[in-house]
Amino acid sequence: MSLLVRSIGELVTNDPSLGDGSALGLVRDAALVVEDGRVAWVGDASHAPATDRVIDAEDGAVIPGFVDSHTHLVFAGDRAGEFAARMAGEPYTGGGIGTTVAATRAASDGELRANLARLRDEALHQGTTTIEIKSGYGLSTADEVRSLRVAREFTAETTFLGAHVVPAEFEGRDDDYVSLVCGEMMKSALPHARWVDVFCERGAFDGDQARAILLAGMGVGLLPRIHANQLTHGPGVQLAVELDAASADHCTHLSDADVDSLAGSTTVATLLPGAEFSTRSPYPDARRLLEAGATVALASDCNPGSSYTTSMPFCVAVAVREMRMTPAEALWAATAGGARALRRPDVGHLGVGAVADLSVLDAASFVHLAYRPGVPLVRTVLLSGEPQ
Amino acid sequence: MSLLVRSIGELVTNDPSLGDGSALGLVRDAALVVEDGRVAWVGDASHAPATDRVIDAEDGAVIPGFVDSHTHLVFAGDRAGEFAARMAGEPYTGGGIGTTVAATRAASDGELRANLARLRDEALHQGTTTIEIKSGYGLSTADEVRSLRVAREFTAETTFLGAHVVPAEFEGRDDDYVSLVCGEMMKSALPHARWVDVFCERGAFDGDQARAILLAGMGVGLLPRIHANQLTHGPGVQLAVELDAASADHCTHLSDADVDSLAGSTTVATLLPGAEFSTRSPYPDARRLLEAGATVALASDCNPGSSYTTSMPFCVAVAVREMRMTPAEALWAATAGGARALRRPDVGHLGVGAVADLSVLDAASFVHLAYRPGVPLVRTVLLSGEPQ
Repeated sequence: MSLLVRSIGELVTNDPSLGDGSALGLVRDAALVVEDGRVAWVGDASHAPATDRVIDAEDGAVIPGFVDSHTHLVFAGDRAGEFAARMAGEPYTGGGIGTTVAATRAASDGELRANLARLRDEALHQGTTTIEIKSGYGLSTADEVRSLRVAREFTAETTFLGAHVVPAEFEGRDDDYVSLVCGEMMKSALPHARWVDVFCERGAFDGDQARAILLAGMGVGLLPRIHANQLTHGPGVQLAVELDAASADHCTHLSDADVDSLAGSTTVATLLPGAEFSTRSPYPDARRLLEAGATVALASDCNPGSSYTTSMPFCVAVAVREMRMTPAEALWAATAGGARALRRPDVGHLGVGAVADLSVLDAASFVHLAYRPGVPLVRTVLLSGEPQ
Repeated sequence: MSLLVRSIGELVTNDPSLGDGSALGLVRDAALVVEDGRVAWVGDASHAPATDRVIDAEDGAVIPGFVDSHTHLVFAGDRAGEFAARMAGEPYTGGGIGTTVAATRAASDGELRANLARLRDEALHQGTTTIEIKSGYGLSTADEVRSLRVAREFTAETTFLGAHVVPAEFEGRDDDYVSLVCGEMMKSALPHARWVDVFCERGAFDGDQARAILLAGMGVGLLPRIHANQLTHGPGVQLAVELDAASADHCTHLSDADVDSLAGSTTVATLLPGAEFSTRSPYPDARRLLEAGATVALASDCNPGSSYTTSMPFCVAVAVREMRMTPAEALWAATAGGARALRRPDVGHLGVGAVADLSVLDAASFVHLAYRPGVPLVRTVLLSGEPQ
């Protein structure tokens, strides 16, 4: 079965050899042909070959599916009370991340699966077609493995984040926990994970611990990524570049050397503006990274503590408003950028050969994702050419 | 036909005599009975009377429908290019508001109606059940009347805003245009409008012109509201209070005297954070107004130039993040506050006797409107008790 997707509006391909030759490879009055779930042909609608089926986007823009390369979707419970207290500037005496760890451990597999399915569907209907999902609210071998097993039911991009924080039962024994993560926990996580991640931050894991954890993961075949420089300047970004991590995530507090290192590397700087929005924190300096030549991705960081949004359109709008990305830079970062952050050449663009993951918008241009903030503009989502 | 809406989550009534006694009148494990489109009973679900039909919100929160008291939905065309240039910090040589005036004048009635219907539906499905709609892109007697006629097909809350800007053909003859607005245009608008509004701002209409226009409208029976103190300190707020206008809208640049005047009046301070979001401008100081005792409303300002969002949940989230409103204050402002800004005691709350306009959320608490920014959380909308 072949499918033709037609738009008299604009088609964003992220293939600069197509259309207007920009990074977005923008084609107007375009058609895209899907065969066997992949893009088989892209070009001027008047030259499109005949196909079995047609989806007419009319004047709606067509964009590659969002690649959300950073989420924490395996959890139970919510922390609305903590959020409301933070927004009111009040001290909060609850348990923070520990609350989510306790709720996650107490939940059944079915509860974790149902919550994840709900959030995955929510993301999908807002145009997210590839999603990375981390563990990190289990923090025991059994609970981390269970989290990854459930995550793997929904995505190939699973990340072992046993090193999210040191759990309460290891208080004062950080190094014992690091040993557990590097040993038994890593080995048990391995069959269910593609990536290994660590929260390298004051109060979580320092540079030496983070290096040990990432090297242990790499030693058994996991690929590294890292939570780096979110709350303070720290060694995370340098470590990411040293280990050729696919991505350094957050990048809120960067030295000139950090920016230069990222620009000279294949490590993507993944920015997570939902976290700054929801914690009322200063945003990362996207322009500094872009102007230095670093590759920038946008992701949601969806989690119940610091960024409980699944909405990549929202992240695009905030990136434009607050981080001074252009709408084109923000869309590229949320699609092609995310794909680079996951080292996935098959997604995040609509060049020939790509997986036919795309969205049709209720808008004439992708610019509307930022121009019309908060409005649900995703009309139709295709996964491998199949309408969802 | 009687209807029962049940929620084991929370029901926001905005009636402080109900539930927890807060301004939101929050009832848990609640039921609400609708008869003849109005709320007939509210209370503990275990005491609810029998009804013909039941809507079970399960653990979803139930909130009053949003009252969006400030929109400019009668127009044609869009200004995505102008938006993108502004976000990139580039000069824009296009026509600004004049572009929309030209497109609106050139559009057929059917085109204006279709665009308005699309935006009205978009707003409705995000929980807006009462909407004010202004003219102001016609700027000739025929085009203003036509705009109001189309708007009146969608809402009783129509506002004559012939005094939006001075149109190009009256350049250098402001007072002639004011005379036209106060005379023939006002008289022709009257059958189609409830309100009269003026953009009182440097570059638009000064305090004396604004007073003349509002008094002319009031003289024929229209009720006053005013665009005040958006871009600069100006006389708008004082004029609003002097004339007992229902609302002074924007309120971004206020003196202490302005704040005191609002607090001592029945004029609502309507804040429009979508405009500051989309123009990258400083936000109004909501806390200063709230702490002085002024009544605050939130509205979308939906228009194609400076705030092209229909999403009241988005405005709530931004009000919490940027204007330091609590989630409870923001929800109240977007519902009961909007109703006061339209002097409509029958909407914006769910006390007995209110119109049964409400939304069921895909969330256990109204807090999620801010906690989960950008996520479409409105599951079901009822207008006068009828699911939409």
